[in-house]
Amino acid sequence: MAIRTVVWNEFLHERQEEAVRAIYPDGIHATIAAALGTDAGISVSTATMDEPEHGLPQSRLDETDVLLWWGHRAHGSVSDEVAQRVQRRVAEGMGLIVLHSSHFSKVFKLLMGTPCSLRWREAGERERVWAINPSHPIARGIGPNITLPNGEMYGEPFLVPEPLETVFISWFQGGEVFRSGLTYQRGAGRIFYFSPGHETYPIYHDAAIQTVLRNAVHWAYNPAPAWKDVHDAPNVPVEQSPEPLVAQGASLHAHGEAGFR
Amino acid sequence: MAIRTVVWNEFLHERQEEAVRAIYPDGIHATIAAALGTDAGISVSTATMDEPEHGLPQSRLDETDVLLWWGHRAHGSVSDEVAQRVQRRVAEGMGLIVLHSSHFSKVFKLLMGTPCSLRWREAGERERVWAINPSHPIARGIGPNITLPNGEMYGEPFLVPEPLETVFISWFQGGEVFRSGLTYQRGAGRIFYFSPGHETYPIYHDAAIQTVLRNAVHWAYNPAPAWKDVHDAPNVPVEQSPEPLVAQGASLHAHGEAGFR
Amino acid sequence: MAIRTVVWNEFLHERQEEAVRAIYPDGIHATIAAALGTDAGISVSTATMDEPEHGLPQSRLDETDVLLWWGHRAHGSVSDEVAQRVQRRVAEGMGLIVLHSSHFSKVFKLLMGTPCSLRWREAGERERVWAINPSHPIARGIGPNITLPNGEMYGEPFLVPEPLETVFISWFQGGEVFRSGLTYQRGAGRIFYFSPGHETYPIYHDAAIQTVLRNAVHWAYNPAPAWKDVHDAPNVPVEQSPEPLVAQGASLHAHGEAGFR
Amino acid sequence: MAIRTVVWNEFLHERQEEAVRAIYPDGIHATIAAALGTDAGISVSTATMDEPEHGLPQSRLDETDVLLWWGHRAHGSVSDEVAQRVQRRVAEGMGLIVLHSSHFSKVFKLLMGTPCSLRWREAGERERVWAINPSHPIARGIGPNITLPNGEMYGEPFLVPEPLETVFISWFQGGEVFRSGLTYQRGAGRIFYFSPGHETYPIYHDAAIQTVLRNAVHWAYNPAPAWKDVHDAPNVPVEQSPEPLVAQGASLHAHGEAGFR
Repeated sequence: MAIRTVVWNEFLHERQEEAVRAIYPDGIHATIAAALGTDAGISVSTATMDEPEHGLPQSRLDETDVLLWWGHRAHGSVSDEVAQRVQRRVAEGMGLIVLHSSHFSKVFKLLMGTPCSLRWREAGERERVWAINPSHPIARGIGPNITLPNGEMYGEPFLVPEPLETVFISWFQGGEVFRSGLTYQRGAGRIFYFSPGHETYPIYHDAAIQTVLRNAVHWAYNPAPAWKDVHDAPNVPVEQSPEPLVAQGASLHAHGEAGFR
Repeated sequence: MAIRTVVWNEFLHERQEEAVRAIYPDGIHATIAAALGTDAGISVSTATMDEPEHGLPQSRLDETDVLLWWGHRAHGSVSDEVAQRVQRRVAEGMGLIVLHSSHFSKVFKLLMGTPCSLRWREAGERERVWAINPSHPIARGIGPNITLPNGEMYGEPFLVPEPLETVFISWFQGGEVFRSGLTYQRGAGRIFYFSPGHETYPIYHDAAIQTVLRNAVHWAYNPAPAWKDVHDAPNVPVEQSPEPLVAQGASLHAHGEAGFR
Repeated sequence: MAIRTVVWNEFLHERQEEAVRAIYPDGIHATIAAALGTDAGISVSTATMDEPEHGLPQSRLDETDVLLWWGHRAHGSVSDEVAQRVQRRVAEGMGLIVLHSSHFSKVFKLLMGTPCSLRWREAGERERVWAINPSHPIARGIGPNITLPNGEMYGEPFLVPEPLETVFISWFQGGEVFRSGLTYQRGAGRIFYFSPGHETYPIYHDAAIQTVLRNAVHWAYNPAPAWKDVHDAPNVPVEQSPEPLVAQGASLHAHGEAGFR
Repeated sequence: MAIRTVVWNEFLHERQEEAVRAIYPDGIHATIAAALGTDAGISVSTATMDEPEHGLPQSRLDETDVLLWWGHRAHGSVSDEVAQRVQRRVAEGMGLIVLHSSHFSKVFKLLMGTPCSLRWREAGERERVWAINPSHPIARGIGPNITLPNGEMYGEPFLVPEPLETVFISWFQGGEVFRSGLTYQRGAGRIFYFSPGHETYPIYHDAAIQTVLRNAVHWAYNPAPAWKDVHDAPNVPVEQSPEPLVAQGASLHAHGEAGFR
């Protein structure tokens, strides 16, 4: 069965600015969705901020295997409820691919717990995205690096937790470096942050970048059933203890009650 | 200079329940503070939930090197503002030691980004806290394990990110295991989660447990100056690029402006 | 195409001791191979120490996707050449599953770089293998834990590098704990260490243990082409530099030569 | 008490080549030792390859807290015995700082278990060593980056295990990137790999590089007593089990014997 994938985009720049529309006439999400759609193992749809519940009601997230997220100017307009809903769905097992300026999205900051800050410069400079582990499932098929003629500089320090794996590091013409591809495991869900991809450069039209995105969808997909009670802290009653026990000592909890939150 | 340490406690059980007051007559925070105070390298004070701003105004956190946190029944009553303030201060470099039932505190959940859920049983069963790396700074001086005659069972799966280091794993008489000592780096701050320590057992009176707490304060202390702008994403102007650059391509940002949030 | 898997066994106990032969009449490798063979996605064969080159000539390793290793009393009799050959093949991308007493095998010690020591007791005591992340590909389908009526105690500290992921932790009746399932990435190859499985207990006949082994083969498999030059340190000539360069400064190397080893 | 530090150098280039002697007239080890010696908390001596046992008899290693290693053309001439002795001492708790071309030293390859290969170019190009975590103890006091007017390019992929922490990443004028500062924990010992430092460039005379080396000595120092039996796998006799046990099942081991190796 194909991996059910949703590409989310705030979809503002493309409607407001001609420079962006010229590159992504139907929106960044449409370009990414088309790129993913060339893979028979991926079934793709899109969602945007202006839709009810930002296009991400619980029922839809429940049927989403992997979500891609692109946001920029409207991070603050995403509802806390939807951001927390995405966070919870990741813990249950949904994969998440966080793109470019979404390092500052509510969704990513909630999942990382850190500032997610960085340095930046928009000068259309050359960027080389080096594969640190070319045999990693996300890096397959792209060669030693991806050279982008125009990239937005993102520079270290990047305030995220030490990742599970560093997959890519970018070199910038202006003199900086950036960990541009990082993996995380959070609960049952896998997260991939990938920094290339700016609204005024045609980066999502690049064939190698599209390969990385398809690879990342496959990597982030967890075929296990959703872990629906991942947020619960169940009491194990004394009489159901794996080894026989006789309870001792004082207790403030009534038998079988839920823990405090 | 001594490490400026604050022990925070919600301080409810000890005032409401005789079983707890019998063990911690002045509050769990007082017992922990007394244990830390035997170390000349630590200067200790306490704070509790009922104080204004829970005893943690910004001015006090700014002068705190390491914060210990004990909460249980009132996690939901801690203000979001104070919880986020602690989260921000950790990113700047404050150490944080999260104790026992505080796995479900707002502060810890914000910093981990995961459910922080676990299994539990209150049967006063035997717990052995094994040192995985006895030469780790936090484990020094306690021997191969700490045996607690009465412990609350906390069981895996424990829904936290893969840690920097697993320092302790607990064995429970009833048949479960738990990663009872875990380290994390978040921004400039270090975090140690330590599960032993229940309100109805005298665990914080145990000499080896007290050694771990003192060790952890030293480990969590970051002597670097506070990283006050750790949350900022400064623009690097083209003319200040490390390598000379000529800007190319379109841009939606005015010169020198801050990034979107 | 099925994953080409080789189960390696030193195959001494089963021929020398009746207690072992009674449980594994055709050898531990035969029992494991039969368990893997029930999966249509795995094509399995076996190799033993007494075969020429221990059954692992370079030509065979080159056509092996995943190798399982079981050794005990004859670690010292495995040739350094074969052990290093396996180490090199892992770096190129072969998966490796290291079983039970093979924590002290040459192959595992070469790959870890640490003592790989532990504590042990052979008392046929009860062991519970808890899944730390039940949604991990290696843990799927086994439930919260595997209970073994008779296990050999392996206890912490276990002197291995901090793993990529802790997948299982074992509880022992006698009071110890052990990280019984650990993952590592080494070069292009993935390694899984799994401690259950003793020569005098029928552990490899347990259905849940067999599920873990099949899962682990799938997890360890890297479909990327073998990274044959992973050990080389190629010079990048100045004239092939990604950015144009003019060489400066003194050099002791002739043009294009290999680095020192 | 000061940290007992030994700077080891193969000391060949400086005696054989004028270009190197001009920069390091008394040897690279002498320059590094002088830099460390400005710190009252460090007591420093040196050792070179031509001394008996390469200047590293067991008795000296036993009294060494932190060892720095610089080798290049004579990696193959270092005796296996001394390399393994260093490896063992790290497991017991000695800190190790591995410099530049020593990525291919026997000592480092034994401890990593991986090829330790990389790409390289000797063109005297500009290198910027960026601090990924400026508040890490090793990075304190150097600012956002160290700019070296002439560096030897080391490029990714660098075939080492995923580190505990990535402390530095280098940018090279020619277009490559490299993880130039990486930390590892192996047994009780801490390891720091630091790539800057070439025989024909005056990199070890750079004040910021010297700051990093002094920081690294402090970071790598483990004040715990040496873990002398870290390589042993002791049997825990049934009658000394933490919980009372009655032995069951067959056993091939005699009472109290050592494990197989």
